[in-house]
Amino acid sequence: MRISIQDVTPTTEYAEIIGWVHEVRDLGGLAFFLIRDRTGFIQVTIPKKKAPEAVVEAAKSVSRESVVRIAGTVKGIEKAPGGRELVPDEFEIISSAASPLPLDVAEKVSAEMDTRIDSRFLDVRKPRVKAIFVIRSAAVHAINDFLFSRGFIHITTPKIVAAATEGGTELFPIAYFEKEAFLNQSPQLYKQMMMAAGFEKVFEIAPIFRAEEHNTVRHLNEATSLDVEVSFADHNDVMELLEDLIVTVYEYVAEHCKAELANLEVELAMPTKPFPRITYAEAIEIANRTVPEKLAFGDDLGTAAEKAIGEAMGQHYFIVDWPTEIKPYYAMPYPDTPELSKAFDMMHPRMELSSGAQRVHQHDLLVEQIRAKGLSPESFEFYLKAFEYGMPPHAGWGLGVERLIMTMLDLPNIREAVLFPRDRHRLTP
Amino acid sequence: MRISIQDVTPTTEYAEIIGWVHEVRDLGGLAFFLIRDRTGFIQVTIPKKKAPEAVVEAAKSVSRESVVRIAGTVKGIEKAPGGRELVPDEFEIISSAASPLPLDVAEKVSAEMDTRIDSRFLDVRKPRVKAIFVIRSAAVHAINDFLFSRGFIHITTPKIVAAATEGGTELFPIAYFEKEAFLNQSPQLYKQMMMAAGFEKVFEIAPIFRAEEHNTVRHLNEATSLDVEVSFADHNDVMELLEDLIVTVYEYVAEHCKAELANLEVELAMPTKPFPRITYAEAIEIANRTVPEKLAFGDDLGTAAEKAIGEAMGQHYFIVDWPTEIKPYYAMPYPDTPELSKAFDMMHPRMELSSGAQRVHQHDLLVEQIRAKGLSPESFEFYLKAFEYGMPPHAGWGLGVERLIMTMLDLPNIREAVLFPRDRHRLTP
Repeated sequence: MRISIQDVTPTTEYAEIIGWVHEVRDLGGLAFFLIRDRTGFIQVTIPKKKAPEAVVEAAKSVSRESVVRIAGTVKGIEKAPGGRELVPDEFEIISSAASPLPLDVAEKVSAEMDTRIDSRFLDVRKPRVKAIFVIRSAAVHAINDFLFSRGFIHITTPKIVAAATEGGTELFPIAYFEKEAFLNQSPQLYKQMMMAAGFEKVFEIAPIFRAEEHNTVRHLNEATSLDVEVSFADHNDVMELLEDLIVTVYEYVAEHCKAELANLEVELAMPTKPFPRITYAEAIEIANRTVPEKLAFGDDLGTAAEKAIGEAMGQHYFIVDWPTEIKPYYAMPYPDTPELSKAFDMMHPRMELSSGAQRVHQHDLLVEQIRAKGLSPESFEFYLKAFEYGMPPHAGWGLGVERLIMTMLDLPNIREAVLFPRDRHRLTP
Repeated sequence: MRISIQDVTPTTEYAEIIGWVHEVRDLGGLAFFLIRDRTGFIQVTIPKKKAPEAVVEAAKSVSRESVVRIAGTVKGIEKAPGGRELVPDEFEIISSAASPLPLDVAEKVSAEMDTRIDSRFLDVRKPRVKAIFVIRSAAVHAINDFLFSRGFIHITTPKIVAAATEGGTELFPIAYFEKEAFLNQSPQLYKQMMMAAGFEKVFEIAPIFRAEEHNTVRHLNEATSLDVEVSFADHNDVMELLEDLIVTVYEYVAEHCKAELANLEVELAMPTKPFPRITYAEAIEIANRTVPEKLAFGDDLGTAAEKAIGEAMGQHYFIVDWPTEIKPYYAMPYPDTPELSKAFDMMHPRMELSSGAQRVHQHDLLVEQIRAKGLSPESFEFYLKAFEYGMPPHAGWGLGVERLIMTMLDLPNIREAVLFPRDRHRLTP
């Protein structure tokens, strides 16, 4: 009966393991193997003179990264990883690896990102890389637990749609039988319709698709978005919810992923509530202290400004009170100062993680704001209809899951946070 | 402070609620409203002579399905729903509904499916319809809990891909910048690559896309698939896992969705483990007892055969030992009888819910099987490469989430189990 490598302790008497050959060292009379499975490493030592002939033969012929089944006696040995080693009676090659390997799994120096993604299945065998995806899975787990425990309903919205959420050009067209369709940029319109449906609190974790032309270390053409929408809530309510979620995810990862964080040599910068809130006007002012190209009110915050503000803030923070004209039509303007809207961005010092707002729930105001963006209300008929028959006030946000992981683990490139990235030039594997 | 309608009990003294106007009855001196929120219904009674004038005015002008805020005294009344009613001091119309409604939410007789989907946001206000999606959300919750508790890693695989999983023609093409790409039919190849990566146990709940031309009550062009893959496991191991999952989901729904099941007037047919296993050959034999068009060994089971076998079985069951030629190239043939494969379908009496298999993990056999299907190994290079460098034996399955919900709740049409269905003719809302 096979056991996980992490379950083999110095006091285990006999163990059968299955794993990959991570390292091989042959010292003449002794052959050493480092065997790896999902849970850890174990040293396997073969004294060639004493070991069964079949074991010696298999050990001689096996290549690195082959899958092997090994059964034998466990011995406590201080200097071995985990303080124990395995001396095999049985050594079976289950699946042999060709050589040379296109990517060296045991290598300390990292290969180029492109080379790594080309052989992603080998790349993620590296404990450092695998750790990212174990943590990502834990974060998804924590997100689900958190939102279900707060009474949210998980929804599934369509990815094939007839209209662009924001009327933009950054859309991938699909041939949908005889019709033209698009890949959805965001579940925005659909999650709002579920407010009209009376679902009150909904969430979705799902792919979003953006045909952005530029190739950067923080954009993906296919990304994962956590979308949340809440009825009878305003922007402040959902900002608190977002803070709570971020803190909960960090705490969950800190508690459940100690080994992975150690592998990554990451010490989590634990966020604390409440995140500071600065207005857009204050953000501009902070940026203008240091950025060479000064920003005027109404400008988008570019990368340089985000960096400057992030350095000044030094922690997660919110930017609130955005100019209505640079936020989407569905953001609610303040009644008394309609040039400002109840929109917010939630920022990590390195970059934006989330955008949200109290939404416009009044049909006529929404039509007006759609027109003001130069869009045609006719294209949004299926959406606008939901505002005519009892749409409650509501608010919500979308959070980039890859950006959450990237900033949490201080990864240099967003491609590190997704198994199979899709970008301007990459469509495989 | 607003409270949920279900939290207003006969002993509550004073309550503020927000909800939708479900029904209005005017009996001259008394006006009755039935107000609905996500959690239930409450009767609101307005004695016109005694009530504040503002309340009477608001009550007179409000239309059905408007959103209202009502605050007032609670009285225990036996014949009212929940044994209590609300006598308002305050009655505020938060969001007025236009009339006539495109769909009657309080109506007992159901509209046509197409009419319902056209106004889906109104359709799901019906407690019966909303119940389906609360149960679907609970099922997703149970699936997550079950798989995380068993040590599975949640993965995200790309939906935009360069190659078809099964080389079929049922693909939606995408213009991906200057390249041609497709919407992925299944995470099959990607979850298998994660076995080569050493992830051992993975799952994903995500959209799949199939450009099937035919429009039926059990097919969708965009559906949700739960995909699971396990290393060092065979078909029997993952069939047990699948049984456990199904039973767990049913038990979770039975325990947590009592009100929703009552709304739907559904008594769950609780599945019991182990599900009976019949071979493909036995399945053909059972079908041939009743179907008019007799099946020969090697035929696909059509709708009529599935129905006949389902009636004979009367519960969830597995069909095992399928002919290799009618299963995908990645299904493992039995070593001694390679014309049969270690593939299975998991069936509800009404239809197939899941397909799975032990997979081929040997590179050369896989190439041979790809060729035998008339496909070109060159198109699968990114996938085949993962089989050259230590691919462990593995097995897995995919489960249709909408079919799971449809069969669990005895829904006549799969469109009932998805908020915004996509089919041959429908792309909105």
